[in-house]
Amino acid sequence: MTKELVFGHQNPDTDAIAAAIALAYLEKQDGYDTEAVALGPVNPETQFVLDYFGVKAPRVVDHAKPETDLVMLVDHNEPQQSIADIADLTVTHVVDHHRINGFDTSKPLYYRAAPYGCCSTIITQMFSEEGVTIPKEIAGLMMSAIISDTLLLKSPTTTDVDRDALQALAEIAGVDNYEDYGVQMLKAGTNVDAKSAEELIDSDAKSFTLGGKNVRIDQINVVDLEDINKRLAEIKQAMESEAQNENYDLFLVLVTNVLTSNSELITVGEPKDVVAQAFNNQFDENDVMNLPGVVSRKKQVVPPLTTQLEANN
Amino acid sequence: MTKELVFGHQNPDTDAIAAAIALAYLEKQDGYDTEAVALGPVNPETQFVLDYFGVKAPRVVDHAKPETDLVMLVDHNEPQQSIADIADLTVTHVVDHHRINGFDTSKPLYYRAAPYGCCSTIITQMFSEEGVTIPKEIAGLMMSAIISDTLLLKSPTTTDVDRDALQALAEIAGVDNYEDYGVQMLKAGTNVDAKSAEELIDSDAKSFTLGGKNVRIDQINVVDLEDINKRLAEIKQAMESEAQNENYDLFLVLVTNVLTSNSELITVGEPKDVVAQAFNNQFDENDVMNLPGVVSRKKQVVPPLTTQLEANN
Repeated sequence: MTKELVFGHQNPDTDAIAAAIALAYLEKQDGYDTEAVALGPVNPETQFVLDYFGVKAPRVVDHAKPETDLVMLVDHNEPQQSIADIADLTVTHVVDHHRINGFDTSKPLYYRAAPYGCCSTIITQMFSEEGVTIPKEIAGLMMSAIISDTLLLKSPTTTDVDRDALQALAEIAGVDNYEDYGVQMLKAGTNVDAKSAEELIDSDAKSFTLGGKNVRIDQINVVDLEDINKRLAEIKQAMESEAQNENYDLFLVLVTNVLTSNSELITVGEPKDVVAQAFNNQFDENDVMNLPGVVSRKKQVVPPLTTQLEANN
Repeated sequence: MTKELVFGHQNPDTDAIAAAIALAYLEKQDGYDTEAVALGPVNPETQFVLDYFGVKAPRVVDHAKPETDLVMLVDHNEPQQSIADIADLTVTHVVDHHRINGFDTSKPLYYRAAPYGCCSTIITQMFSEEGVTIPKEIAGLMMSAIISDTLLLKSPTTTDVDRDALQALAEIAGVDNYEDYGVQMLKAGTNVDAKSAEELIDSDAKSFTLGGKNVRIDQINVVDLEDINKRLAEIKQAMESEAQNENYDLFLVLVTNVLTSNSELITVGEPKDVVAQAFNNQFDENDVMNLPGVVSRKKQVVPPLTTQLEANN
């Protein structure tokens, strides 16, 4: 049996790492010679999770070809989010919870997708369907992935299947109070003091074209909004500088308190008044807007902004 | 709950019809308001199956938009094989056993693919995973789809999962001897006497570019090769005429005896000697070559032809 590498997307988050380790284990029971790897170093949140459950971080790779032609993808499918030599490889399995885009194969393969809050939720279902027992530490990783992707089940991307999977995994992992654990874990991933303003505004930033405007939207998770507010001048300076260099019309930073599920939105560029209309809200004198209950860029920020910018285009 | 249409590919075969009916039933148990439809009239083989199990042929549609925006695809994913207005619809579910190509979505969805011999095999697994009992007549349809796609488990596309599913479905359907039933069913689909030569050479034809040559390959299923051989002159005449009109360098018709799993290959155009080399074989004085054991165009005809035509390009 030829060796197969199993990995999540670039800039791996906890789900990308947990899902790779879990799928590699599950497919090994089916006779595949799998190894979970990562397309980058783990982030502080994931390192906390790995330490807690005593699991080694997967080896980091940037190409598969020297080792194998066969790969399995988790938590992504779009080629630009994948390994550098994806075009030269054969994908035999995909497990994912995102839209399908630009993913073409020349042969039939195993593809398993569902619109759940977390990829590890799908893999939890697959363990159950195949009657394979989930090892305690892998249950711990997958439980952490669900907490991370759904912000402790508070994100609007959360489904009942995620809720049930989280309960079941916490039991297997022997975690009595997953909320306490989850808060610790989320806190471990939000140490913003150690990061420069430039790092903060780029850490989870994505570019969009909305109503003809170049819009950059970053998201920063914190456990206390004050950690960002005290550095507001420095952060806005960095945003303005990058907006100028990269020709962004608007640069938005969504600062999300993962404990309270509230956010604030820092904005530089124009048209600011249209951004305010999008959220039926207003900016304070520092160009900051409170957004109570907003935690999902994908579901709660991009759609209203798209509508309003297109209406004003 | 918005109504959803469930359908297989254009020119539906038995699997496209059976899988649509089976998935529509399964998802209805999950609360979806589904209706199985077809993108064309059923073929004689499928009509035999529907009559045998007392099931009505699905309604034929060519657009979904007047009725609904939501659809589920079975046995295909490529847009050019799908409903005419596929670009204006939201696909919520796909179950398929083909390569993935040109299938892009803007949102996450349910996608279930596996490299099995038949789409109905995957749906059989899904019934089992979800603990839903398969109604007797739907088991009969899915059993027939597996027999049809794998030519009674003899095609090299057949997997152990198909074999197991066929056994289980035959039991539920109350078919004691699925081989006898399968021969009857395959025979029902092979009445070539009723078709003109032009219909025969176009019934299941696909175009390929191989080694720079325009190659057309049709497949005709029969229960007696003599049914075609007695009309050879007429058929070759039709092939030559269509090759000229459509600029095919080569026109191949693979005539497959579904009872013995042997084929013969009728060829017009050039380079005929390269075709002979591809199969390490020779043509008789009528440009016909015997291909014992060959039943799959996808696995046994296209690959050797590709290799040899590319080597001679």
